[in-house]
This record gives sequence, C-alpha cells and structure tokens, in this order.
Amino acid sequence: MKLAKGMRDFLPQQMMQRERIFSAVAEVYREFGFQPLETPALEYLTTLRAKSGDEIAGQLFEIKDSELALRFDLTVPLSRVAANSQFPQPFKRYQIGPVWRREEPQKGRFREFWQADADIIGSSSMRTEAELLDVASTALARVGFGKFEILLNNRKILNSIVEKFKLEEKANGIFRVLDKADKIGREEVERQLEPFFGSASKEILPLFFTKGSNEKKLDAFEKYAPEGVKEVREILDFYPKFTFDPLIIRGLGYYSGPVYEFRAEGFSGSFAGGGRYDGLLGIYGRGAPAAGISLGVERMLMLMGEGDGKKTYTQVFVASFPDTYPQAAEVADKLRKSGICAETDLMERNLRKQLDYASSLSIPYVIILGKKEVEAKKVNLRDMKSGEESLLTIQEAIKKINE
Amino acid sequence: MKLAKGMRDFLPQQMMQRERIFSAVAEVYREFGFQPLETPALEYLTTLRAKSGDEIAGQLFEIKDSELALRFDLTVPLSRVAANSQFPQPFKRYQIGPVWRREEPQKGRFREFWQADADIIGSSSMRTEAELLDVASTALARVGFGKFEILLNNRKILNSIVEKFKLEEKANGIFRVLDKADKIGREEVERQLEPFFGSASKEILPLFFTKGSNEKKLDAFEKYAPEGVKEVREILDFYPKFTFDPLIIRGLGYYSGPVYEFRAEGFSGSFAGGGRYDGLLGIYGRGAPAAGISLGVERMLMLMGEGDGKKTYTQVFVASFPDTYPQAAEVADKLRKSGICAETDLMERNLRKQLDYASSLSIPYVIILGKKEVEAKKVNLRDMKSGEESLLTIQEAIKKINE
Repeated sequence: MKLAKGMRDFLPQQMMQRERIFSAVAEVYREFGFQPLETPALEYLTTLRAKSGDEIAGQLFEIKDSELALRFDLTVPLSRVAANSQFPQPFKRYQIGPVWRREEPQKGRFREFWQADADIIGSSSMRTEAELLDVASTALARVGFGKFEILLNNRKILNSIVEKFKLEEKANGIFRVLDKADKIGREEVERQLEPFFGSASKEILPLFFTKGSNEKKLDAFEKYAPEGVKEVREILDFYPKFTFDPLIIRGLGYYSGPVYEFRAEGFSGSFAGGGRYDGLLGIYGRGAPAAGISLGVERMLMLMGEGDGKKTYTQVFVASFPDTYPQAAEVADKLRKSGICAETDLMERNLRKQLDYASSLSIPYVIILGKKEVEAKKVNLRDMKSGEESLLTIQEAIKKINE
Repeated sequence: MKLAKGMRDFLPQQMMQRERIFSAVAEVYREFGFQPLETPALEYLTTLRAKSGDEIAGQLFEIKDSELALRFDLTVPLSRVAANSQFPQPFKRYQIGPVWRREEPQKGRFREFWQADADIIGSSSMRTEAELLDVASTALARVGFGKFEILLNNRKILNSIVEKFKLEEKANGIFRVLDKADKIGREEVERQLEPFFGSASKEILPLFFTKGSNEKKLDAFEKYAPEGVKEVREILDFYPKFTFDPLIIRGLGYYSGPVYEFRAEGFSGSFAGGGRYDGLLGIYGRGAPAAGISLGVERMLMLMGEGDGKKTYTQVFVASFPDTYPQAAEVADKLRKSGICAETDLMERNLRKQLDYASSLSIPYVIILGKKEVEAKKVNLRDMKSGEESLLTIQEAIKKINE
C-alpha cells in the first residue's frame, strides 16, 4: 500500500536535516523573544474561510460530515487564538508545523508542507517590521542562506493611489496585475493597467518602475501616499537593509500594510515573506494590530539536498558474542549515561554481520566485546574510518569518542 | 470564532512544558540508536483500515470526496513505510507527533493528541522486547516519572491455550473478557469464560489468577504454551524488571507476541505500552518481525500541570527611551549573539509600561538604557527578583546573566 498522493515520508537521513533546520530557526526565534504556540490541525471552516482569499478557500481538505477542515496556514489559527486570549502585549509567538493545501501536486510542491512563522500581535510601530526583517535575516544566516535581497512594499501606498483615483472597487484587479509584474514585464503591466487609470496612466504607471535609491523611489510616491511612504521610511531608520519595491503584493488575502519578500540571486521565488494584517484579528474576536513573517523552510531543505550524508545519530555500535551480550548491554548503558548514542546487536548475529550493519549506517565507532575484554574489564574500540583499534577502559573510550 | 470541539491550543507556558518532555524523550530514543521518521497526517483509508480493529476504524476523520483520512496512530504509517523501503535491519525508528480520533470528547480525552513511539523492525529476538522496556523506563525516569511497574504478557500464550481447546474462532470473545479483568474482577471473568472452556474451566481459569513470582506463574502456563513461556523467560534474562501478568491484552488490533504496560501506583491507566506485531508489515508489503512501545506523553503532561510557571524563554528585556532605541537594539543584538534571549520595546512605550511588560512575563533581567549609559558605553542591569541594579559593560552583563 502506498503513500497518499502529494504527501511525503521523511526518512531518517532527511529528518536529521529537517531537525537541524527547524531547531536552528526555533533557536533564533527564541533569542528574539518569540514564544512557542501550537494550534490543532483541524479548524472550523468558518474560521478558515473568513479571510483566506478565493484561491486558498478552494484548496481546503474538508472533513466528511463535519464543519471542519485542515488548516492551510499558521496565521489564521494564531489570529483566532490571539483575538480570544489575554496575553501581555506585544504577544510574540513562533510556530513551526505542517499545513495542508489540496492543490494538484507538481514538482517541488506538496499537499502537506511545513511553515516556520514568527508573528507579533499588538504593536502598530514600524519597529515591529524592522524586528521581523531582522529575525528572518538572522535565521536565514544561521541556517546557511546568508545571501539574499529583501524587497519591501507597503499596501497602504497602493491603497492610497487606488483611493485617490476612486478605483477602490477595482483594487483587486489592479493588484492582481502588479502581482504578476515579475512574469509579464513592464510593458504588459502598463498595457493592462491603462484602462484603469485612463489619462492618469502616464503620470502614475511609471512610478512603479522608478530606478534608483530607496529615497528616490519613495520621493516619487510621496505626494500620492504620504502615510504609506512615511512608514517605509520609519522601517528604513530601524533596519535599512532592504529595497523598496512597489510591485510586491503577496496575494489578495489579509495584508494591510508593509509586505516583504526575501529573494536569493539565481533562484526564483522567495525564501521568506510576510506582512502586516491589522484587520484580521477583529474578524475572530478582539481586534489588534499584527504582523508576521514565514520562513520558506521547505525551499531551504530542497536546496540543501541530502546534506552531509549522515545516516544515523548513533556514535557507537557495541558488538558482542552470545556469551557477552549482557556485558555489551551494560557497556551501552554506560555510554548512554554519558550522553553517547549507542546500539547493541538486537538480532543475535555473528560478528561479521554486526560489523556490516555498523558499516551500512556509517556508525563511526564499534566496540568489540569478547570474553577476553570482559575479563580484563576493558573494551576494544575500533575507529571505523581509520580501522585503528585500541584496548581501553570504558572511561577512556568515552573520552576518545567525545573528542 | 472558536477552537474546534475536542481540540486544544497549547499556549506558550504549556508549550515550554511540552517541548521539555518531547525533547527529553527524543534524546533518550536517540541515545538508544533510534532514528527519526515522519509520515504525513493523511493516509489512504485502505492503509488505515487494514488492521486497525473495528473500534478505531469507526473513529477516523475522513476527508470529503477522497480516499483519505487522518492517521489514528504512528504504528500503521511506520509499517507502511518499513514494508516498502530498504533499511539496514534492524530498523529502529522513533516518531513524536499528533494522531487523530473522532471520539466523543470527554474530560482528559481529546480528538488530537500526541504519541511518542519507538519501534524496532526486523528482529525476532527477545532482546528487542528487553530494549523497548529499557528505553521506555529510561525515558520515563528522565522526564521525572521513575516509579512504575511493568506488566508483561505474551499473546502467544493465549493463542496456544485457545488452539489447545480448539477455540480459535472464539478467541476475540475470550480476549475481550480478559481485557476487562481489571474492571470486572476475577469472579466475573470466570463466570463469563466458563461457557467457552466448559469442563476444562477448573483447570485453565485459575492459571490466570496465580499469585507469586514470575517463575511460579510461568511454570503454571508452561505445559499449555511452551513457546510463549520460553519467550517471556528470555526477556526476563535480558531485562528482569517486570511482572508477568497473563491478563494483559492491549486490544484486539495487531499484536501477536509479547505485550506490556507501564503502570504507576495510585494512577489508573498506563504510562506507556506496546507489543510485538509480526503480522502487520506483510499486509503493506514485505513482511518482517516488528515490535514497539508508545510513551503516554499526554498523560505525563496532564499530571505535570503548569510546571515551574515559566512564562517565556526571554532572559533580558532591554528598556529604552525614544532617543536610545537604536542602541537598545544593538545591545539586544549582542546579547543574542551570545545565545541570550532578549527583547526590546516594539510598542514605543514609556519606561513604566516597558517594566510592567517585563514583570508580566516574569522576565528575570531588565537592562535600562538611557542616554547616560549610552555615553558611558555601559548598561544598567536590573535583577528583577532582588531589584538590585549594576552598571556594567555589555560583556560583564552577559557574564552575570549566564551565571
């Protein structure tokens, strides 16, 4: 019987890689004062559909004969929790866990995938955005993806422009065109947006393609969207390492303010992204300003491949003979009490086969425990790489393994 | 909008407790040479129904318009993976993750709960069982639940008796009665089993209630079930710390050999349990002997309650004034680079409110960074418990916090 379509099993070698990434990311999140939160896989459909955008609402795994479905992200459950609990503000939480989307599986896209999110609830200050850019940058660097560019926009700038030209009802159509600027190019964007802006097109559309410094681009937008520009300047004050890019949209879901993406050279798509969603909590209970970032952990794992090829956490295999197995179990027990991962032979095999097993998992050390060693109260420690053997006390062996 | 029925959110204080337990258990599993594996939440219904027993098959969360459902345990997915992959044998894996059962929620029982399993695929030797008892005992002790009794039985003993009296077709009925012996008591068990065994009742039924040492009880069963008794004696050789209890059944699912439960005094129900399921893998692909144990992590967490009351991982809050926030961010950055969890004020509050926030989360240290401190290149470190303040260099502060 088979693995379900679009799903993955993570075998030990992949899991070791995943655990390394997830624990490094969690460590950075905690260093910045984010606290762990976990929410259930299943939520009420009303919760999930409240502000998910049409595309995602059509990708829910719904439970038969119920009002439930699997969560499609970690932001909606957080908003439900935060809008109905009393936390000291700001409430800074991280969550690393799976989400599910019923899309047609394609290469590199799966129906179950993990997200690693950090969010801050309760603050309207742009210090929030600066911290989110900082924590994501630090986490990416910690994991070994230090080279990237941050592109930042503010949905308030777009909203102001749309209001100025009384295009509120057509905002989604306009945003949809800008969202695909990357793919269709400047000319096509201008061609598609002209019908919306009419005679103002010549004035407005070039703004989106201004070249030059952040200051120059912000100056160009200032008279149309003073508040949105002011916020971007505040973020620049606190964390200046980003490029203002008025074409960043990040979908039609719940974003209301600054939005950002982390992009790496020579790699399409983003490594991390997020934004402000001040309007979301109010839907679930008590409203509050909110912003968050999601690290593209699955993407990082895909690029890292199999990693260092380590197949097991086990450091020592204690090989034995039928009459020395009880002593081998004792030796393994002592190694474990020193924090060393150790195995004994659970299959009652001969020495040759025990060594084959240790080799097949690339276990770095084997202790061979014969009658002679038991009587001398020593162990024979073999370094599997060099082949070197040494007769040592258990304490000496522990010291050597830990070196 | 609300949390779905029978589900739980785990808030930071609970999560810190959960992370402590899960990482301690994973650490012990790894020390014994178990490797991490993760499987998806969703499996095909045919996989889940193959050998789940009627009760559980009725508790599946099925996905609408599909052949999928949420997994109800971690043993079935492992069996699917192991029966279709080539791992060096024995394949020792651990998995800590949620499972889902659509039961009517009751006090202390939830529809999503976590399991922490260790299993060994590929070995028929009773060394396997001894290791599973050992790893579970070690993990329970590591987490602080060191006082328990292990009750062990062998389904082979029951199977032999049933065969001897040609009751194979009535085996499930007989096992069901034995399974509830705890609740209904000896007299009622004998009354319900008499119709099955007829005139042999007087010979057979008292065996199940023999008092005394493991040896005495095993001797009593030997002539009816020599092979099953021999296996229990082998486990006794390798790991003698258990009580042979012929009334332990562990449900009508997939168990085929030794089964065991960890019980604590003054506490009903078990803390851990497992058994051998040699027949399960063959259903999913290539057959192999298999045995495993599941730690009752949710039960442990329930008994531990809120733990030490720690509300955050944050060790230092760096308080600032409007003109010293950039320097506060730098100080926090230096603390984090030394592995210290540090926060700054993201809400542009006055000092009083910043201190209130730090107090409300019981953050142990606050650094107050005024203009004076910035100019002197020092920080003012306040121990929030004693109220003591000291003017220190950042390096001195790091040293003090790490003490």
